[in-house]
Amino acid sequence: STANAFSFSKRGMSLEQEINDSNDHYLHKGIAVIHKKPTPIQIVNVDYPKRSRAVIKEAYFRQASTTDYNGVYNGYYVDFEAKETRNKTSFPLKNFHQHQITHFENCLSQKGICFVIIKFTSLNRYFSYPASRLIKHWRNQEDSRKSIKLNEIIDYGIEFYPGFRPTLPYLETINNLIQRIEYDK
Amino acid sequence: STANAFSFSKRGMSLEQEINDSNDHYLHKGIAVIHKKPTPIQIVNVDYPKRSRAVIKEAYFRQASTTDYNGVYNGYYVDFEAKETRNKTSFPLKNFHQHQITHFENCLSQKGICFVIIKFTSLNRYFSYPASRLIKHWRNQEDSRKSIKLNEIIDYGIEFYPGFRPTLPYLETINNLIQRIEYDK
Ligand SMILES: [Mg+2]
Ligand SMILES: [Mg+2]
Repeated sequence: STANAFSFSKRGMSLEQEINDSNDHYLHKGIAVIHKKPTPIQIVNVDYPKRSRAVIKEAYFRQASTTDYNGVYNGYYVDFEAKETRNKTSFPLKNFHQHQITHFENCLSQKGICFVIIKFTSLNRYFSYPASRLIKHWRNQEDSRKSIKLNEIIDYGIEFYPGFRPTLPYLETINNLIQRIEYDK
Repeated sequence: STANAFSFSKRGMSLEQEINDSNDHYLHKGIAVIHKKPTPIQIVNVDYPKRSRAVIKEAYFRQASTTDYNGVYNGYYVDFEAKETRNKTSFPLKNFHQHQITHFENCLSQKGICFVIIKFTSLNRYFSYPASRLIKHWRNQEDSRKSIKLNEIIDYGIEFYPGFRPTLPYLETINNLIQRIEYDK
């Protein structure tokens, strides 16, 4: 059937593709407006051929200053990073960069809804995990563990399950995340 | 003096540079987290030289699907586009693209704070102008004018004045914009 063919075709999708696909669904259904930010590029040299479109001939990758995704859901500013690991029992903090943590801190102080979508690829399990918890672990990593245990993610995150449309119904977890953030205050 | 030298150096700034400069100020003062989105690029060919950073050798500009700027201010999702004109009495609608209008419509239905920063370069006047008004003019342009009169922008927009830090204190207008949006409901 079409549904099976569709679901089969999704098995090769990266986490990023799964999220982009879900965001398209949310956009077209009027549920939320969330986009992946383009990779920042420093352009050095562009060719403008006649009767043809411009070609960038020399450019370099630049360091991002934010997370990958942001947007708006029912009046809330939503901001998240997507990360996957093959690890089965914990999530290594080296997957994050200081600029992402700093960005989360800045957005949280402006009352944004900030979280990480974590995929354990070997387990095929997906979680939303509050940025406030990530920041605590990040700050303690010198004294303490350099990873977040799966059990901690089960306890403080919210699990969701891949589906048909959207591929990743991660926004199902957002009301729960919002409640936790408001409870923290 | 340093202040004069600084202000002099700003005379050559584009509107985009003025806004980026202001966003840096807002970020470092903890007032708001607003970033310009990178230009979306389709990368075709990348060189990975030994002992040196990756060089993009072939890439193309892609059509953006959003506006230029978004972020979070005190729990509000903020989304805007920056536009300048040399025109002295009206702002031509041809400065906008359908995808920007559609994005504003989508964000407004999610209760985002959406507006345009308009600079009349010949007059050196700056306005925040609600996206809801822009959308009305955009929809009427077949039957009616293909531009928005300066007088309409004075009446429905909020003027602000360039300063020292931030260069463009455009967030001063946001509480006023929020009130107008909430008044419209
Ligand atoms: Mg990522
Ligand atoms: Mg623009």
